[in-house]
Amino acid sequence: MNGLRSARSAPVFDLPGWSQARLQQVEQALSRWVGTDAPAGLGEAMRYAVLDGGKRLRPLLVLAARDAVAAADGGVRQVPLDDAALRAACAVELIHAYSLVHDDMPCMDNDVLRRGKPTVHVQFGEARALLAGDALQALAFELLTPEGQAVPAAVQAALCRLLGRAAGSAGMAGGQAIDLASVGLALDEDQLRQMHRLKTGALLQGSVMMGAACGRADAAALAGLQAYGAALGLAFQVVDDILDVTADSATLGKTAGKDAAHEKPTYVSLLGLEGARAHAQELLHDAHAALDATGLPERGALAALADMVVNRSH
Amino acid sequence: MNGLRSARSAPVFDLPGWSQARLQQVEQALSRWVGTDAPAGLGEAMRYAVLDGGKRLRPLLVLAARDAVAAADGGVRQVPLDDAALRAACAVELIHAYSLVHDDMPCMDNDVLRRGKPTVHVQFGEARALLAGDALQALAFELLTPEGQAVPAAVQAALCRLLGRAAGSAGMAGGQAIDLASVGLALDEDQLRQMHRLKTGALLQGSVMMGAACGRADAAALAGLQAYGAALGLAFQVVDDILDVTADSATLGKTAGKDAAHEKPTYVSLLGLEGARAHAQELLHDAHAALDATGLPERGALAALADMVVNRSH
Repeated sequence: MNGLRSARSAPVFDLPGWSQARLQQVEQALSRWVGTDAPAGLGEAMRYAVLDGGKRLRPLLVLAARDAVAAADGGVRQVPLDDAALRAACAVELIHAYSLVHDDMPCMDNDVLRRGKPTVHVQFGEARALLAGDALQALAFELLTPEGQAVPAAVQAALCRLLGRAAGSAGMAGGQAIDLASVGLALDEDQLRQMHRLKTGALLQGSVMMGAACGRADAAALAGLQAYGAALGLAFQVVDDILDVTADSATLGKTAGKDAAHEKPTYVSLLGLEGARAHAQELLHDAHAALDATGLPERGALAALADMVVNRSH
Repeated sequence: MNGLRSARSAPVFDLPGWSQARLQQVEQALSRWVGTDAPAGLGEAMRYAVLDGGKRLRPLLVLAARDAVAAADGGVRQVPLDDAALRAACAVELIHAYSLVHDDMPCMDNDVLRRGKPTVHVQFGEARALLAGDALQALAFELLTPEGQAVPAAVQAALCRLLGRAAGSAGMAGGQAIDLASVGLALDEDQLRQMHRLKTGALLQGSVMMGAACGRADAAALAGLQAYGAALGLAFQVVDDILDVTADSATLGKTAGKDAAHEKPTYVSLLGLEGARAHAQELLHDAHAALDATGLPERGALAALADMVVNRSH
């Protein structure tokens, strides 16, 4: 499949180069916006949860999708990030960060290590971790709705709509509830896919669609991006399951082997290690095919991010 | 002060009559919108947390403010609720409900009784309570951002902006963090006011401003409504502190006397019972004065809600 892909692909995309400048802006924006006006130690916990860590995959998906759509819309490739895209990139990361804070708490996964550091509740106590997560979710929607004209109201509304659905009971929170209810159960592949489609897929796909909502895209492009996001979201989880078995905690920056320890169903327990690897490659192929079907001219960043998701080591 | 107020007030407003039809619509909408598409028991926990309980003060404030603004804008008083106002009314209640679910958890107040029923974590377990709260917050923003033209994009954006700020670290979550950090400390009145201005005041005031955002109001009206919301929000908390001392658990539907048990600073501990009662009356006076200053012609519902907040027995 890689051979097929290379034959029809554009020249190799410089993902590190593309990412670097964008991530710098995202980090600066997060540092400026997160927890700076929060009282009583809440801001420290929020900043600890968000800053200085993470691959920032979701912000990169927002920005890559926005670049693809902006180029199709006659935008210039190297145009500075517009306010809407930067806010959307930060907002999805805040939702991701809050979900990790709550997920790590004793009543959920009870994990003490995240990105190589003590988890938020270990560092700040459970009550403050709970509140910091809650405040991060609210902040995501605050970021999406600045006063003034910098972000058109229609874009603000669309971004809130996409993020609310991706985060809520028909998205991430719903997937976590399925996860919780499925411990110790033998899920079949359809059930496992449904769980992950919500738990991690919805926010990854939502990131892509939020990037698209920062520009204008026709129905075909939107449908292709939606399918790309779905395939990439699932691939991400399959690879996560593989890495939970094959990588060590130091490489992952979090506790390895915890799926098996928690008797959680995974793609590896269902398909075996080789089966899971093959499935990840199939999903990567699907993601590229969906991207090609968008008809968007500048899809190098999105393609490279899909490759990165599947070929990552942590 | 009551005498002064009566002298300048409009004829007595029929609050029960006004509330009844509106609350019926709110209850029906909540039942339609909350938890119906949530998987794996999450929906049941969300519905348990929201339906069949509560005074619905925040939705009533949204709808009363919207009525006041609509009347000034040439709207008819008995016009059916527009979609925006009904959604805003439900959204603020979801934020309130989620905050109670998280606040009752063992790592926070560790309360087992709420509205006369076992709290959500007692009924559904801590993990599901945590997720249900998270999903309710996301759902609030989903409700505010429907597809289609029923709610103008500018109104959707304004409602999300107001709700995000009221709920987040500069609002409710920030106030809860101050509360958490102040257990066992001797706060002065300024510090106590700041805590409550955020913890309960921000969402009550936000409810008023969200109602106003469903219509058009001039700067004077908005400033008056803002001041009304601030006074009412603080009055609510002062009365809460009084009731925590004077009412029993059966009347409150929650555990009475828990502030003292938790060594929390309150208006009663700071001002004494009579001092707190006098302060509540002062704040009620401020709320009415602010309302009069709006210049809005139809402010009977807002005035009656302020009276109800201060004179309630639970």
